[in-house]
Amino acid sequence: MLEIPELNYRDDCSYIIEVPTRWNDNDMLGHVNNVIYYSYFEAVVVRFLMEEGGLDWLNEKIVPLAVETLCKFRRSLVYPDLVQAGLRVGQIGSSSVAYSIALFTKGIDSPAATGHFVHVYVDRATDSPVPIPKKFRNLYERFS
Amino acid sequence: MLEIPELNYRDDCSYIIEVPTRWNDNDMLGHVNNVIYYSYFEAVVVRFLMEEGGLDWLNEKIVPLAVETLCKFRRSLVYPDLVQAGLRVGQIGSSSVAYSIALFTKGIDSPAATGHFVHVYVDRATDSPVPIPKKFRNLYERFS
Amino acid sequence: MLEIPELNYRDDCSYIIEVPTRWNDNDMLGHVNNVIYYSYFEAVVVRFLMEEGGLDWLNEKIVPLAVETLCKFRRSLVYPDLVQAGLRVGQIGSSSVAYSIALFTKGIDSPAATGHFVHVYVDRATDSPVPIPKKFRNLYERFS
Amino acid sequence: MLEIPELNYRDDCSYIIEVPTRWNDNDMLGHVNNVIYYSYFEAVVVRFLMEEGGLDWLNEKIVPLAVETLCKFRRSLVYPDLVQAGLRVGQIGSSSVAYSIALFTKGIDSPAATGHFVHVYVDRATDSPVPIPKKFRNLYERFS
Repeated sequence: MLEIPELNYRDDCSYIIEVPTRWNDNDMLGHVNNVIYYSYFEAVVVRFLMEEGGLDWLNEKIVPLAVETLCKFRRSLVYPDLVQAGLRVGQIGSSSVAYSIALFTKGIDSPAATGHFVHVYVDRATDSPVPIPKKFRNLYERFS
Repeated sequence: MLEIPELNYRDDCSYIIEVPTRWNDNDMLGHVNNVIYYSYFEAVVVRFLMEEGGLDWLNEKIVPLAVETLCKFRRSLVYPDLVQAGLRVGQIGSSSVAYSIALFTKGIDSPAATGHFVHVYVDRATDSPVPIPKKFRNLYERFS
Repeated sequence: MLEIPELNYRDDCSYIIEVPTRWNDNDMLGHVNNVIYYSYFEAVVVRFLMEEGGLDWLNEKIVPLAVETLCKFRRSLVYPDLVQAGLRVGQIGSSSVAYSIALFTKGIDSPAATGHFVHVYVDRATDSPVPIPKKFRNLYERFS
Repeated sequence: MLEIPELNYRDDCSYIIEVPTRWNDNDMLGHVNNVIYYSYFEAVVVRFLMEEGGLDWLNEKIVPLAVETLCKFRRSLVYPDLVQAGLRVGQIGSSSVAYSIALFTKGIDSPAATGHFVHVYVDRATDSPVPIPKKFRNLYERFS
């Protein structure tokens, strides 16, 4: 398992987006279901790659594939709430990259959740790992 | 981060259920979305607690709360597929318990995903950690 | 089946909110899955009842229960997109109310989807229909 | 709006599958969220087209697109439950087809939900409606 730095404050993030919770994100215990936290993780990683890196999921020959994610649930999220999902690029390997992730809510400094998300770049035709393409390596260096 | 043993074969599991994938579990890359793997993790943990432990989510005063989950994605799941989600109780603490989890598919020995799920028992009124109730401690010992 | 007026323009709506699409709202055909449209329908109805009507889901003795929903899919929604989900109160019965619903996207006048959502007010303890509480009847008249 | 016959008994269905509910299908009211009923509707339609009709979503040039769905919620579904989702082909047009749908649960004759699902066949490249391909027209006649 990777040791990837935690993001304990908004200022630790190099990229941050807002994700409003949805009513049916809640489970029968009245809180956002723990599975849904990962959809907020995914939201910030995907938006980062598309907006900052210009990733075109359907047409790129080399795409990032999730190989490991982890979440520590520190505080319940609820509906309605505006989640601020942040990331910082942690480790950059030859074909893999690890993002530190944190989720915040309005008016509270400490994160409601922290964790990580690891991508490996693969050739879509063969699913074999390949070196991180130059444009994404540059992106990762800028946001690390 | 916890070091919890991996389940590399079905025989490593002490409890296993079947979860059919759903069409809209797939994302636009044509595979089950990585977020959904955690809903299979949750499925086996929840079913285990309800069927083997008699947990009644809405009426118990002491309930388990997810505090950490992790998934290593080893192989894509697809629709249609019948996922076999297994667990074994790993570490039993005073108020927390860690389950090793693995997801298998028909006809393949090695897991499509492995990971863990950590519960802390809390008093629902105060959200403070409390010792694992005796009936669940017994359950965990039987399935460890 | 009810005949409820369609909302063909934003101006036909009496209440409207914004719902950003999420990456995993998309299905493997590369569009927002048709099931998810209903989660946008639910979003506007739930927000309307909570923000304008002060509905407290967990503590009210009389709650609205969905009894019928319908959606006509006119144009694909995609990720990323900012959906504007609007409603107008259509028919107000003794215990039921029908909302006309429409989904719009930026820069396009005609809706991507139209439909309706019907609530019946029930006594939570017995699940039997009861008259619409006065505060909600007033709300519905204001937004019809 | 279409007038499509309701399926009031299991015997009214010409095709039926089983869909186990999932824990996070439940919303904070403790019942399966109304949005999720449509994922059970989709489950039976998609399985029917793939298993009985041999539909290959990713490679067919002509695909069915959902244009209208409707659900009448008659009884709450819960977790855990085994939903039996059935369909019968109702109206067959030149490029569209309407399926009657019903959801049942074990031991109860009357459906928990009824509704319909309407597909239009389109050319994937242009999104324009085209005649229902012969193999699907034959399928629909067999299951109507």
